[in-house]
Amino acid sequence: MTASEDRPSHSSSQRFPASVYADRVARAATLAADAGLSGLVVTPGPDLRYLVGAQVDTFERITALVIPAVGDPAVVAPRMELAALRDSALAEIGVPIRDWVDGDDPYALITDALGSGIGRVGVSDAMPTLHSVPLADRLDIRLELATAVLRELRMIKDASEIEALRRAGAAIDAVHRQVPGWLRAGRTEREVAADIESAMLVAGHTRAEFIIVGSGPNGADPHHEVSDRVIERGDIVVVDIGGPVAPGYNSDCTRTYVVGEPDTKAAREIEILRQAQQAAVDAARPGVTAESVDAAARDVLAAAGLAEAFVHRTGHGIGLSVHEEPYIVAGNDLVLREGMAFSIEPGIYFPGAWGARIEDIVIVTADGCESVNRTSHGLFSAH
Amino acid sequence: MTASEDRPSHSSSQRFPASVYADRVARAATLAADAGLSGLVVTPGPDLRYLVGAQVDTFERITALVIPAVGDPAVVAPRMELAALRDSALAEIGVPIRDWVDGDDPYALITDALGSGIGRVGVSDAMPTLHSVPLADRLDIRLELATAVLRELRMIKDASEIEALRRAGAAIDAVHRQVPGWLRAGRTEREVAADIESAMLVAGHTRAEFIIVGSGPNGADPHHEVSDRVIERGDIVVVDIGGPVAPGYNSDCTRTYVVGEPDTKAAREIEILRQAQQAAVDAARPGVTAESVDAAARDVLAAAGLAEAFVHRTGHGIGLSVHEEPYIVAGNDLVLREGMAFSIEPGIYFPGAWGARIEDIVIVTADGCESVNRTSHGLFSAH
Repeated sequence: MTASEDRPSHSSSQRFPASVYADRVARAATLAADAGLSGLVVTPGPDLRYLVGAQVDTFERITALVIPAVGDPAVVAPRMELAALRDSALAEIGVPIRDWVDGDDPYALITDALGSGIGRVGVSDAMPTLHSVPLADRLDIRLELATAVLRELRMIKDASEIEALRRAGAAIDAVHRQVPGWLRAGRTEREVAADIESAMLVAGHTRAEFIIVGSGPNGADPHHEVSDRVIERGDIVVVDIGGPVAPGYNSDCTRTYVVGEPDTKAAREIEILRQAQQAAVDAARPGVTAESVDAAARDVLAAAGLAEAFVHRTGHGIGLSVHEEPYIVAGNDLVLREGMAFSIEPGIYFPGAWGARIEDIVIVTADGCESVNRTSHGLFSAH
Repeated sequence: MTASEDRPSHSSSQRFPASVYADRVARAATLAADAGLSGLVVTPGPDLRYLVGAQVDTFERITALVIPAVGDPAVVAPRMELAALRDSALAEIGVPIRDWVDGDDPYALITDALGSGIGRVGVSDAMPTLHSVPLADRLDIRLELATAVLRELRMIKDASEIEALRRAGAAIDAVHRQVPGWLRAGRTEREVAADIESAMLVAGHTRAEFIIVGSGPNGADPHHEVSDRVIERGDIVVVDIGGPVAPGYNSDCTRTYVVGEPDTKAAREIEILRQAQQAAVDAARPGVTAESVDAAARDVLAAAGLAEAFVHRTGHGIGLSVHEEPYIVAGNDLVLREGMAFSIEPGIYFPGAWGARIEDIVIVTADGCESVNRTSHGLFSAH
């Protein structure tokens, strides 16, 4: 094949009005200047999509948005791949494209676009070393991550992004409401996942980004996705599903189901998990740290002797990426602010036996947080 | 979701016997030492799959195979993602895994695994700067690309890899033989692509990695994939398809079809394209440069006044990646050697009108090259 792109192309019109992007690029330049950077170099990935609405996936030939701290932004892109930028906001916001062909030196074009007197330069964290190493050599500096600058922008969702996350939440809720009807003894996890996938598309998802159906012992592996295991009566089943809804913001919601009647001890432990999830939701508000929200869930489980069963962090930011800043994890002293969006998803796992997880996406409000997922949180019985 | 992995998992048993991987890791260490490197750090991607048969896709939490030039290799991996390494050859070839959990410093573990007296370090080109920047900071060096070392290994296919590429070629040939039956006026490109996708799976592909059906004016865009355009009588149609066949080696083959009778001038130009492709195949042998093979195709087209219509390089290497070294492009003075595998795929493009491309995968032999694709190369009539 001729393309450097191995993944399917995306549909067009998956973006906000152009003024949104013009504002984001201008703010990125200001934040870069504030951070003492000479500029930013952003390659394809969610950062580029956030800044200019471009859904490009290139690997071997570099495409880069160059945002000097002072001066005008520009895009450096292979001529062969200009078509992929047509759906972006670049033309409307007046960012010029400097194209190159095989044999040219795109790193020289990027250096040029950064302007004179280049000091520290920040790059997007998705840039592969295939490009960062020659760029660093050309600039003769050690590159820094632009993450601190870009997360400052991407972490705080504006009104249109919040609305997009609410729509994503409603879409995945509509799917979870149907799950009890599909979870029946004798069916395989894969059959249930197929029902879920169809329903996700019907509910407005562009695609099913991930579908976890972890029944019985498979639920005890937080990384389990789907298998041919036949669901049995009494199984506890973790269903963790999500994907993008136009213009690209992701849903992500986990509920735990039981087929028939649950074991009494398991039901009691899942009720404690529900309380732990609620405690973290109650703790999330402006001014508290990300780690304190993690601790809120963890403390409830620890008090019930379930600390060892909770083997992962409490949550992750979400937006154009399923996983992004802020991470709700021990050691992260980031202070939460209004407009941040993240998952709260404590889980308990008993290897070889069963697992459970309850997850909502919440958005920090002026005085607390709002969950975009509205189905109830207890153990759901399916028959 | 809890996973950092958003893509579907791969099936197991997609690898060669363990001894193949033990040998590759040992050779990588030797080549690193020869290149004056203290060691290599290889993150998930085709390099990791090539070296230890691991199909891992992680992003935010680093997994890395560390190969010191002197000393024993080790893997650093997040505890949560150890399951993804189970299907690899690591256990069989005795490479230990040093796992880490959120809050640990994986870059310290990598530094430790590199051993003492660290000088220059090479990293795999797929490593995102999310990891390369903190690793460089921790090592206090500017990282280099391990590409020169790893391509030396990956570029030269051994007997089992060549056999895998032959099987991939036979699989895609079986699909192309059926294409004339699917290309009919009144059908859309997307309908034809759906037939192709099913047939690719039946023919042994793990998945259809890419399907290009470029009819009429869509064929003039080398980056076109598939659309709802209705195919018309007289259309010239470019069909460029491929994907992995177990244990992961890719097919990639393009043929150009015409629905009904072609325009006489177009038929004549496609015959020249066929001659250009054949000239490049005839030129490919040990001892000649990659760019000379590109020139062989280009010269034939230029002699017919079609130089401007051939807007891309002649080919790319192929193996576990659809695109890898060696690139058959002007400026690449790499000397071809026995065992190299790459595409030879000149094309001619007339924007707004039509395009054509003819592509085979060839493997350099002792005195020439062998094409793994055996269907004929002329314009195929479909009715």
